[in-house]
Amino acid sequence: MSDRLPLCPISRTAMILGSRWTAQIIRELLDHGPRRFQDFQDALDGIAPTTLSNRLKMLEESDVVAREIYETHPPRAEYILTAKGKKMSAIIGAMRDWGVKYG
Amino acid sequence: MSDRLPLCPISRTAMILGSRWTAQIIRELLDHGPRRFQDFQDALDGIAPTTLSNRLKMLEESDVVAREIYETHPPRAEYILTAKGKKMSAIIGAMRDWGVKYG
Repeated sequence: MSDRLPLCPISRTAMILGSRWTAQIIRELLDHGPRRFQDFQDALDGIAPTTLSNRLKMLEESDVVAREIYETHPPRAEYILTAKGKKMSAIIGAMRDWGVKYG
Repeated sequence: MSDRLPLCPISRTAMILGSRWTAQIIRELLDHGPRRFQDFQDALDGIAPTTLSNRLKMLEESDVVAREIYETHPPRAEYILTAKGKKMSAIIGAMRDWGVKYG
């Protein structure tokens, strides 16, 4: 993240999607619903746990992803898309279409 | 750019759009047509010339942007979107919509 908020809405969106893996984390949640940390780890081949943790934290801070704790034994945490995060499906869909044809 | 080609089409697209300023460079070309280096410099407030130069080079290497030289005196160079680059308009439009509402 930059130290100043960009005024351009495209740039604000690019800041969230821009870091490597963030678009794929959102895609996992769009395609499969709530996911545990380990689910991302399994699906995103090659992501380092610290990187995944940082990306999820950034997405939580941007209010794109939320973390839910279930009071099971042991407690279980799942990541879900917020309403704002779900609205990213149009962008992710357009990115997928372009990448399949031209990427 | 990463040292390996990601297999996921979303990730391939994210690699192009992911660096700060690249989405805004493509938006400038979509909104205004051919642009000179100085045009980007004026429009993208705060971009360093070396960063702009690196981003344009990366977009040329990705075949999203092309550079045209006109044999005027002095010669003039303009950047244009390739056919592949023009097809990014759906993504940039979706990013703009999301950024205006939620970014």
